[in-house]
Amino acid sequence: MGTKLLALLDGTLADPALPIVRADDEGVTRGDGIFEALLVVDAQPRDLDAHLARFAVSADKLELPAPDEAGFRRATDALLEAWNWKADREAVLRFFWTRGPEGTSEPNAWAIIAPLDEALRRQRSAGVRVMLLDRGFEPVPVENQPWLLPGAKSLSYAVNMAAKRYARERGAEDVVFYSPSGRLLEGPTCSVVLDIDGVLHTPPFEAILRSITVQTLFQQAPAEGLDVQFSVLDRSDFERCRGAWLLSSTRVLTRITHVDGHPLPASLLDSTLKRMLGVPSR
Amino acid sequence: MGTKLLALLDGTLADPALPIVRADDEGVTRGDGIFEALLVVDAQPRDLDAHLARFAVSADKLELPAPDEAGFRRATDALLEAWNWKADREAVLRFFWTRGPEGTSEPNAWAIIAPLDEALRRQRSAGVRVMLLDRGFEPVPVENQPWLLPGAKSLSYAVNMAAKRYARERGAEDVVFYSPSGRLLEGPTCSVVLDIDGVLHTPPFEAILRSITVQTLFQQAPAEGLDVQFSVLDRSDFERCRGAWLLSSTRVLTRITHVDGHPLPASLLDSTLKRMLGVPSR
Repeated sequence: MGTKLLALLDGTLADPALPIVRADDEGVTRGDGIFEALLVVDAQPRDLDAHLARFAVSADKLELPAPDEAGFRRATDALLEAWNWKADREAVLRFFWTRGPEGTSEPNAWAIIAPLDEALRRQRSAGVRVMLLDRGFEPVPVENQPWLLPGAKSLSYAVNMAAKRYARERGAEDVVFYSPSGRLLEGPTCSVVLDIDGVLHTPPFEAILRSITVQTLFQQAPAEGLDVQFSVLDRSDFERCRGAWLLSSTRVLTRITHVDGHPLPASLLDSTLKRMLGVPSR
Repeated sequence: MGTKLLALLDGTLADPALPIVRADDEGVTRGDGIFEALLVVDAQPRDLDAHLARFAVSADKLELPAPDEAGFRRATDALLEAWNWKADREAVLRFFWTRGPEGTSEPNAWAIIAPLDEALRRQRSAGVRVMLLDRGFEPVPVENQPWLLPGAKSLSYAVNMAAKRYARERGAEDVVFYSPSGRLLEGPTCSVVLDIDGVLHTPPFEAILRSITVQTLFQQAPAEGLDVQFSVLDRSDFERCRGAWLLSSTRVLTRITHVDGHPLPASLLDSTLKRMLGVPSR
């Protein structure tokens, strides 16, 4: 399996074991920065332009300077060149852009390439047990409250990480969040799609991240004769669905096998979606 | 004015300009870690034991290893020794404890001493204009949803920072959050206290940080003949109060002069509170 590599925006590689972030960088003191994560298969990054575009949107939401796109492309080139694609066909590429040291206006930036998490890879074929957890807020009106950073991929992911730990300690492997009124939202690091009577439904991009994988699903579904819709979904919709999935750039597509311990059927659309979205085979 | 100093837990000083955080430390990649901030006046740290105790509570909420208390005390001693107390009588001491580099179980830790923010110092005498902003969640039932990390002082402060920016761009200097139903909560980096008919009221510690300054207020009020209560407060209570304050360890006590542009009266209790809580004079 490949080894984690680090690149700076001038295109040079650095040893990941050497610190590059100051103790007073607001990226670490305040989680004040943004990131992106995308999949690379056989040295081909997937949806690089879309991820760089969303990265710029996140920067705008946090009122950070626009990310140095040319620099992130240089770092990407260096990492793709250095990765051992024969040893590991798949890798996860991440971009980071922080507000920088306190009192400066100098963002800190870097890119990392690393092996895909082994659990995520296994779940692509084995499926995933999820736990439903209340996210504490309603998607409306949060969508119109910019200070809550709806849809920004910020570095402040402590709650997302805590929710995943909470689920893992209780026999699940991942989480789908719902709102206090029961509306389905997203997972800590993924989106959710349900097959209801043969139609694919996913929550609207109101207060949640604009999933690039979900956007790909919308683009490619018509050619496959599939119907995809943004729908207000309730947590009880899991009880009547024919199947459901977690989607993200790195896992691509993972079937949900259980929700709060109750088994979910396997949708007839599973293999079509796997092929359509290009779930890598080992 | 003093210059920022950095110490490691072995008690050695390091140059703050030299990076000490790895690019894959979950403190920065996920805002996954905790911090504390306290005031030091004339080389005397205020409520150090209480801050270390709350630090340990935050670690527990995030399921981090318990902070190395002896190490943080060593770092504190080194910083207090190195600070130029003649040049600057007041300083802010902060502790950081992150989950550490991905795949390790080795928290990263450091302490910083730095001058008190000039705006906070000025506001102690001039007061502060605040804007009320919806925090998106109700304190109940969040208090019983541990995956939402209620009351933990985590590094994931991007929303707090965004709210302060939002207010500053609209003529205010700080924020008081309320819940969707209108319940007052806290500020992004402070607590709020209202004088209603001569009694001091502050929101219960349900889903908000257990303020050490508010705890001090409760301890010292009886000797001054003051009545302090935890109360469910509504945002409309600002319209009937005799005055209100922001409290935190570093600012100590700051009178709110305006709420959403409307002037607030100056409470008759202001000077008593200033003396009681020990607001430093310049």
